[in-house]
Amino acid sequence: MTKGRFITLEGGEGAGKSTQVRLLKEALEQAGLEVVLTREPGGSPGAEEIRKLLVTGDAGRWDGMSEALLNFAARRDHLCKIVWPAIERGAWVISDRFADSTIAYQGYAHGLPLKSLYDLWDIAIEGYRPDLTFILDLPVKTGLQRALGRGDAEDRYEKMALDFHEKLKTGFLEIANAEQNRCCVIDATQSIDEIQSDIRHDVQTRLGVTLP
Amino acid sequence: MTKGRFITLEGGEGAGKSTQVRLLKEALEQAGLEVVLTREPGGSPGAEEIRKLLVTGDAGRWDGMSEALLNFAARRDHLCKIVWPAIERGAWVISDRFADSTIAYQGYAHGLPLKSLYDLWDIAIEGYRPDLTFILDLPVKTGLQRALGRGDAEDRYEKMALDFHEKLKTGFLEIANAEQNRCCVIDATQSIDEIQSDIRHDVQTRLGVTLP
Repeated sequence: MTKGRFITLEGGEGAGKSTQVRLLKEALEQAGLEVVLTREPGGSPGAEEIRKLLVTGDAGRWDGMSEALLNFAARRDHLCKIVWPAIERGAWVISDRFADSTIAYQGYAHGLPLKSLYDLWDIAIEGYRPDLTFILDLPVKTGLQRALGRGDAEDRYEKMALDFHEKLKTGFLEIANAEQNRCCVIDATQSIDEIQSDIRHDVQTRLGVTLP
Repeated sequence: MTKGRFITLEGGEGAGKSTQVRLLKEALEQAGLEVVLTREPGGSPGAEEIRKLLVTGDAGRWDGMSEALLNFAARRDHLCKIVWPAIERGAWVISDRFADSTIAYQGYAHGLPLKSLYDLWDIAIEGYRPDLTFILDLPVKTGLQRALGRGDAEDRYEKMALDFHEKLKTGFLEIANAEQNRCCVIDATQSIDEIQSDIRHDVQTRLGVTLP
């Protein structure tokens, strides 16, 4: 049996990742593929419990390295329990966020040494990388306005300073630049349909599947 | 102001660590020192929340590396919030378990590569080590009988196979052998008073303090 693929969507708050993830799922299913939709931190029962520790509470609750360790603990559980078994049976897995978020948030924005975080990536999940990663890029103010408009309780990151979010944006663009074979930057100021069209184009040309 | 010291007690289940930790605290306080008693995993509010994820539930809930990452996340929080500030103000901190437990449990007993775990120790907490570590050594069956007799709910590790606990014991002895300047092995088949007497002897000779 052919193995599945692993596609991730990354970007700052309010870039529209969860909408795009759902639309891409529809397209892949119409192409006859089994699709597993997931998200990080979380995605498996154990990782969702870790997520609760990460996304609620005060902004200063954890220091950057503690956050990075919790993220990779959740990520490993998510991979072992959900992602790897699904890919093994031929499913295509789409995740709303993955390890690039740890590099961007705890590295570029929080200021932890990038080398430590990439070493952690190697130790925690053997350096495992997605087949394709979309970076949804958006001006910081636009993203935050959209995210705060959601009004849910998971707003610990959104309350951080504007400067934090600017570093995050720069970080994602540098990550994409460093791994161009894996990452595509998408202009997220476009309409929902235009963004999805860009994403489907790249999925087709890079992963060799025909979409509607 | 003189900085404090960091003393840890390690060993398998039922070795009597928590009793010895309390007795050592009394002795250090009688010598006029401020003493902070703590334990791992846990010891700070954030780390105690991570502890709950680690010590309850099925034995196979987390794989070895996920456990190691959660342990180091909790450990970093514990160090940042409790241990380092206390040592900075001159207190002596005694911890029931520390990083050697991760090496013994997830490395020697669970079979994760020791190099990955020591690398994680370097990344997560900058390779920070206690001033003095006691390894309480005991035959496996004696320890498990004592631990199961406690009858508390935190029995996820105690339910693991006998072979697991034998590897654990071997691991702690190898750790002690590899870092003899830091580690003292104590014969925990002795009476409570005899064990405490051995511990106080080593604290006096190695850390240069006079105890009652």
